[in-house]
Amino acid sequence: MKKINLLGATGSIGTQTLSIIAAHPDRFELTAMSAGRNIQKVSEIITRFHPKLVSVLKEADAVRLQNEFPEVQFVHGDEGLIEAAVGMEADILLNSVIGSVGLRPTLAAIKAGMTIAIANKETLVAAGNLVMEAAQRYNVPLVPVDSEHSALFQSLNGENQKRITNLILTASGGSFRDYTRDQLQNVTVVQALAHPNWSMGNKLTIDSATMMNKGLEVIEAHHLFAMPYDQIECLLHKESIIHSMVEFEDTSVMAQLGSPDMRVPIQYALTYPDRIPMADAKRLRLDEIGKLHFEKMDYERFKALSLAYDAGREGGTMPTAMNAANEVAVQLFMEGHISFMQIEEIIEQMMQQHQTIQNPNLEEILETDRDTRKRVYGIVKYKD
Amino acid sequence: MKKINLLGATGSIGTQTLSIIAAHPDRFELTAMSAGRNIQKVSEIITRFHPKLVSVLKEADAVRLQNEFPEVQFVHGDEGLIEAAVGMEADILLNSVIGSVGLRPTLAAIKAGMTIAIANKETLVAAGNLVMEAAQRYNVPLVPVDSEHSALFQSLNGENQKRITNLILTASGGSFRDYTRDQLQNVTVVQALAHPNWSMGNKLTIDSATMMNKGLEVIEAHHLFAMPYDQIECLLHKESIIHSMVEFEDTSVMAQLGSPDMRVPIQYALTYPDRIPMADAKRLRLDEIGKLHFEKMDYERFKALSLAYDAGREGGTMPTAMNAANEVAVQLFMEGHISFMQIEEIIEQMMQQHQTIQNPNLEEILETDRDTRKRVYGIVKYKD
Repeated sequence: MKKINLLGATGSIGTQTLSIIAAHPDRFELTAMSAGRNIQKVSEIITRFHPKLVSVLKEADAVRLQNEFPEVQFVHGDEGLIEAAVGMEADILLNSVIGSVGLRPTLAAIKAGMTIAIANKETLVAAGNLVMEAAQRYNVPLVPVDSEHSALFQSLNGENQKRITNLILTASGGSFRDYTRDQLQNVTVVQALAHPNWSMGNKLTIDSATMMNKGLEVIEAHHLFAMPYDQIECLLHKESIIHSMVEFEDTSVMAQLGSPDMRVPIQYALTYPDRIPMADAKRLRLDEIGKLHFEKMDYERFKALSLAYDAGREGGTMPTAMNAANEVAVQLFMEGHISFMQIEEIIEQMMQQHQTIQNPNLEEILETDRDTRKRVYGIVKYKD
Repeated sequence: MKKINLLGATGSIGTQTLSIIAAHPDRFELTAMSAGRNIQKVSEIITRFHPKLVSVLKEADAVRLQNEFPEVQFVHGDEGLIEAAVGMEADILLNSVIGSVGLRPTLAAIKAGMTIAIANKETLVAAGNLVMEAAQRYNVPLVPVDSEHSALFQSLNGENQKRITNLILTASGGSFRDYTRDQLQNVTVVQALAHPNWSMGNKLTIDSATMMNKGLEVIEAHHLFAMPYDQIECLLHKESIIHSMVEFEDTSVMAQLGSPDMRVPIQYALTYPDRIPMADAKRLRLDEIGKLHFEKMDYERFKALSLAYDAGREGGTMPTAMNAANEVAVQLFMEGHISFMQIEEIIEQMMQQHQTIQNPNLEEILETDRDTRKRVYGIVKYKD
């Protein structure tokens, strides 16, 4: 029986993780969880899964839930998130919170020797060196949940990592795949939220539309697989069937394929290195699909992706700043304060202004994150 | 330094194996080799690679070569083939002879504890149970050289073989991919020898055109990976880029891809479990290829493939008889004695006449092989 602490339980990845735990009650147990403000859903999860420890954002919500569920321990805020990550002597932390808020809980769980199933890509983008160093020091497996990184991880099974020549991340192109940059000027939030292949949370869907999601994934892959940026390629593949590929020195390419279904990489992260059946999942039928399409990535069309490569190559706190700028800009876009194209403009502006600190410590990373967020709000307020 | 004994050195796989040995003189040494009647080429190989032991088909050729190369030991015939397989304390036997003549050398090398790089698929088709039992008893790795089986083998790296749900063999469709059965009536040898993707020997190219090659591969996969026939699928994929795939219980599909180049699986079999660079090989560029096509296999159109599944499911000596009938029929077609469509007719007729012996011993297998060959020649002579 694997004990699982799940951060971000009410989100898209969290909900799908719970469906896997529900399907295998003999294998998995939810021991602790965190959620934000969706208290109704938290109640439902507690009733169904009986976690022993629950963290929510607001103290008032914790108090209210404590009355409803006296047998459960409630905590709240940033410190509560860390308690939920490492509590109850769990085996695995599945971290699916959105944004760099996931960083400190991940580091705490690594120090506690837990296996980390990492769906919180912003953590690796904001502080990849720190996280990977900690994982090595405490000898903790870091298993990616993102479908692309899970595909790379699976393609590296039994392989000598020194023989890699390229990681090839596939990209569907997102909601605006076939739009020119001119056509992007007036797109709406509703249009941006309609992803052609994947059912995902809102932030991730917007990141896919700007292609910043692929940029974050490039930086994530750089850290997870210790690969230089020159050896990480992106390839447009609109069907999202080949989830990513690894090319080796002998020109062999190993790939993981499947119908787009986030439950597959989530479950793999929980069962790794083994696999278990995925009951009601759709089998891949390439004969029914008929054709798979591939196209060279257009780094001018998808400027946010270029910015991410730039930030990754610069290193230090630059990816932290880029990520913070993106998180706030996406939120401002979803709230209607800025246009779609302003997302990348804000990211670029923040990167130009940022003074990179190389080999930053945790406090410098958190300070870069806070400072950049504040400055983005400053610009937009000024513009209003 | 790995010592390699190479059977079938003057054939297509043999020649490509020698190019790999030549490219890595620090890693590989040709210790023994066999060839048939191409004595000119044998002389060239000896001059270049200095094997210590050489087997040829005819005694007269062995005598002639002995005069030319007094420092080399020459042997000949079926017994010579076995000596070349196991001699010189080599580490690896790469068996690329064509046809069931490769069986006894393979068994001898297994008993000698050598790693077997198996390109001689007829051995596994004719006597799969015997070969796999011997490989297990002597704890000898059997590494496939066929691009499809190498792809399956690579896709199983680090995986739990119990979690496989399907092996998916891809098939280009061969020279007559887009022909109806009616159009096949009058095709010529020259047309059949023009394979769209792969540069291969003649027998293999004809087998690709009849789709019997895929049938032999299905039986080979059944033995190599201990898979029931119901869990081995064939998929038409005309570009030959995805070389084959493994589907697992969680619906994940692992695949190996690459430009069609037999040197890649040959080299992998020699370096397994590691990889080394393939100097002048063509990198896979999916963005340049643009599209990959997949189509349901048509088992009525490609009747030889159905016959192979039937033979495999029947088991015992039936695949041996089928393979022998195919070998002779292909030769008779290439020599102009029968039409293309008669290849499968002869195979079907021989299968109908064959009395299957279950759990055959080596002598029963060899007898089935001899008897079937004789009977095919009998029919065709009668028809002339």
